[in-house]
Order: sequence, then structure tokens, then C-alpha cells
Amino acid sequence: MVFDEARFHELLIERFGAPASPGVELGIGDDGAILRSDEPFVIAKDASFDGVDFVASECGARAAGRKALAKNLSDLAAMGVRPWCALVTVGFPDGATEVDASALLDGLAEAAGPFDLAIVGGDTKRSPTGLLLDVTVLGLPGVRPPVRRSGARVGDILVVTGPLGGSIGGHHLTFTPRVEAGLRLNEDGHARAMIDLSDGLSSDLHRLCAASGVGASIDGAAVPVRAGANLEGALRDGEDYELLCALPPESVAAMIDQRVAVRVGTVVAAAEGVTITTGEGCRPIDDAGFRHRFGGAG
Amino acid sequence: MVFDEARFHELLIERFGAPASPGVELGIGDDGAILRSDEPFVIAKDASFDGVDFVASECGARAAGRKALAKNLSDLAAMGVRPWCALVTVGFPDGATEVDASALLDGLAEAAGPFDLAIVGGDTKRSPTGLLLDVTVLGLPGVRPPVRRSGARVGDILVVTGPLGGSIGGHHLTFTPRVEAGLRLNEDGHARAMIDLSDGLSSDLHRLCAASGVGASIDGAAVPVRAGANLEGALRDGEDYELLCALPPESVAAMIDQRVAVRVGTVVAAAEGVTITTGEGCRPIDDAGFRHRFGGAG
Repeated sequence: MVFDEARFHELLIERFGAPASPGVELGIGDDGAILRSDEPFVIAKDASFDGVDFVASECGARAAGRKALAKNLSDLAAMGVRPWCALVTVGFPDGATEVDASALLDGLAEAAGPFDLAIVGGDTKRSPTGLLLDVTVLGLPGVRPPVRRSGARVGDILVVTGPLGGSIGGHHLTFTPRVEAGLRLNEDGHARAMIDLSDGLSSDLHRLCAASGVGASIDGAAVPVRAGANLEGALRDGEDYELLCALPPESVAAMIDQRVAVRVGTVVAAAEGVTITTGEGCRPIDDAGFRHRFGGAG
Repeated sequence: MVFDEARFHELLIERFGAPASPGVELGIGDDGAILRSDEPFVIAKDASFDGVDFVASECGARAAGRKALAKNLSDLAAMGVRPWCALVTVGFPDGATEVDASALLDGLAEAAGPFDLAIVGGDTKRSPTGLLLDVTVLGLPGVRPPVRRSGARVGDILVVTGPLGGSIGGHHLTFTPRVEAGLRLNEDGHARAMIDLSDGLSSDLHRLCAASGVGASIDGAAVPVRAGANLEGALRDGEDYELLCALPPESVAAMIDQRVAVRVGTVVAAAEGVTITTGEGCRPIDDAGFRHRFGGAG
């Protein structure tokens, strides 16, 4: 039997086509899906390419599929909302088989984890190179609206949900998106601003501060560092997929006591800049995390 | 100046970041966008890869960007809804420049045409090969709900919105998505079922019939054929991006008189199959349009 887009479509529908997802009026199989939400919803979109985000010949299609979806769920986590549904583009390399497709779907299912995530659409096609994945996710807020990057205020406390640095050693393929933590930080912690640490604390902290019009003072000794990494890696490596969150001071103790997050610093005035204090003193944090570069200015 | 994802982000926001789009509570620049719709909305997602959907070295980034978005708008057209907003993934090859990026954005703008389409998110990254594009579009219904593939009834009239076949000669890069026609067929024509002709009339007619549980009888002499193509090409070539629509008999005359579409056949019982009648008699139409194939069954 030839493995083609029609067969992948069948496999996808078997696995993800019809969970009991409220608001999905029409799922996969038409020109578009029809969705309904009575309240504002969140949408995000993130691609994962063989040779850029994973090496399929080493990690396999399952890990690739898992990462492609998990990165997107991390964006929903950063908005403090619950996963609702997804659309998935798969570009299969020549020679891909049903075994590869099953592994990919296993990886998507593993990333979806406890969430009844309907896959309501997408695209299946031939890739001109290795495996190409692109996922769009939608999320629904619970009792509180989505959390933006822009709400941090001077005096807020900065927390992160887990250890940072050295993700390339394996964590970038195996991380669990912090959906539950994001919901807790939003609903119980009344998070003022939140972002997921995809490009490294140094870059993502700058983004949160820029969006909020504030500065930050990080306590170097408080930054949780992954085993095998160091503080510099925690600042720069990226792909941690933990959450960085600005909490109002009154809700910090509960979030820390309940092990949702650990304290790493304080929101300060923009004029004070973005700094880190270590045993060697206080220095600016460069915006030095990962950024895709293509070429000259043309 | 280095051309990187941050610079492309700036260029994108300059061009598409802040149109006056109702329902866009938070646009591009956060982990996710926040959207609101009081009524059900349509979402679709379609990728376009260099070497599969276009040849960037021949057509340039502008035509590539135009096609990537136009294909998606064609899916909204097929649901009879109005474009609302989009999320765009761009994988830039090594050596891409700001000139390429500007051309790409010109192409997106050209496809967006008269619609105030907000680009509310997406992903910008390095491609392991040529230009890689993936677009997610959202659409909002007007006075009538979205049109599915599944509503055709025996006795409905089948119409198409323009000539078919030979798209590879250039039409696949220059087509105008039939958004206005789709809205007219839905709102004035009370379309019962609709699909866009992306993989060829032969395949897409089978899809509409399968979804609706009906058959179809096509009048070969009535199928509009693009100059330079023949009837066989009109059935099989694909990438026409015209609409195929099943109309209730009472609304056909108005749609034809107003040149929204032309009549090509009739919806019949499923047991009669999917057939075409030409001067040589009546024969089945094979489901023989374009389908991406990858390899063996593994």
C-alpha cells in the first residue's frame, strides 16, 4: 500500500479526529474547521524543522512530533490558558513510511498528555528536505483572562518554574510544557506578566521588561541551574520551556510554598536596566539568547 | 546590519501589525494572540514549500508569499466566510536578505488584497533548505453560517467559479482566491456544499460527494477549460483554486446571470456514482487528482 497524504489523514483522524471538545463544531476533513468560543481565546503558531529544531535521524519522528506540539503548548502555558485544539502541518521526506507516521502521532499524543486536544485541521505534504512540522494551537482561559508580557509593575517578584540551561543535552526534546503551572500562576498567583523561556532567560527577560516598560534585578544565586549547566548557560542557552512570571508580592509565598515556581528577582524601574547580581557584583544582562539569523541586510 | 528574526518581526509589524481588526484583542508580539468572536469562526492551515509548491529561484519571494496566503484564503472562500486574520511561519534559507523579506511581505499584501487582514502571530526561523511558508487563516461568517462539504442533496446543481486545468502554466502563482464569489454563493446562492479546487475537479468532486453521501453527473461540454488546457487537464491538473459548489435549483439562475459561477452538472444519488458525459458517452470520473506521496507502507 502506498503511504500518501490520504492515508496519513486517516491515521490522524483515528487518533485525534473526534475527542469530546466543546466548541469544535466541525473538526478535521473540510476546507476549514468551525470553532466557537464565548470568551476571548489564545492562538499561537510555531514550526519545528529537521536540522534546525531536531535531528530526525538521531531522535526519531516520535520525539520530533512531541517537541513540535510541546513548544506550542508552552506558548499557551505562558498565557495562562488551557489547551483547546490544534492544527498540524506535516511535511514528510521522500521515503517516509506509516511506521514514521505512527511514531509522529505517538509523539503528538505524548505532548498532548492529559489534555483532550482535538486536532481540527492542518496540511500534509511532501517535504523538499527532512521532516517539517508546524503547529497552530488554540487555548481557552479559565476563570481569569490570558496573561500578557506587558503587565509587570515595579515591585513585582520574578519567578521561574524550573531549572535553566543545558537544554541541548536532551531537555529540549523531553520537556513537559508548563501548562498546569501557567494556569496556577494565572488563576491562583494572579500573574501580572508571563513568557516562556524559549530563547534563554537573557533574551526573554528583556522581552518581558520591554513589553512592560520596566527593568529587572536578578539574583544570580537564586537562578535554578540544570545539572551539568552553569549560570551563563542558564542565561543564554534557550529551549528551557520553563515560565518566567512577574507576580504581585502578596501571592509569591503561596506559589513558592506550593512549589509552582522559585523566586529569581524583582521588577525595578526601567531606568535601572536589566541586571544580575552575583558574588562578583552587579552587571547588566545582555540580550544574548538565541535568535535565528539568515544573512546580510541586502 | 544583520538580517535576523527580530528584524523580520519589525518589518512584519510595520506592514501588518495593527490594522483595525475587530476581535483582535492582542496582535503579534506576545506568546500568543488574543482573539474574540461572538459567532463561530473558521480556521484553516496550509503550507507552501520551495521545490514543492513554487520554485523560489524562478518565481521570487513575492510570488511565493502571495501563493502561500492566497491558498489559505481560498479555503476561507470555500467555506463562504470573510478573511479575519492570519498567522504566518517563514523559514528563511541561509543568505536571505531584507530585500527577500520585503518581497515576501509585498506578496502577502497582494494576496490579502482588499481585506483588512491582521497578521497576529507566527514564527520566523532558519530553514534547512529553501523558503518554507505555512499560513493559518481565520475567517468570520457574514449573515449565513459557514458552508461545509457535506450538505449537497440530490437535485442540487453543481457550479464552478472559473476555468480549470493547466494551472502549472502560471495560474497557480497568480490566482485570485474566490472570496467574493464564495460569499455570494453562500449568502445569495444559499450554497448547500462547497469546496475549493486545489487537487483537481476529479478528486475534489469525489470529496464533496463522499462528504455529502451523493453522486454527481458532470456535463463534459459545460466544464470551463483554461486556454491551452483540455478537459482531461481540467479534471486532473489541480491548483485551479476555483470553487465547486452545490446550489439549490432555485438559486442557480441568479448566480449564473450575475456571472458568479457556471453550471457544470447535477447532484445525483450516491448509487449512480460520479460520472462525466461527453460526446463519447458517459464514464466514471476516477479520483485521480493530485495527492502527495511519500513512500511505501513501512
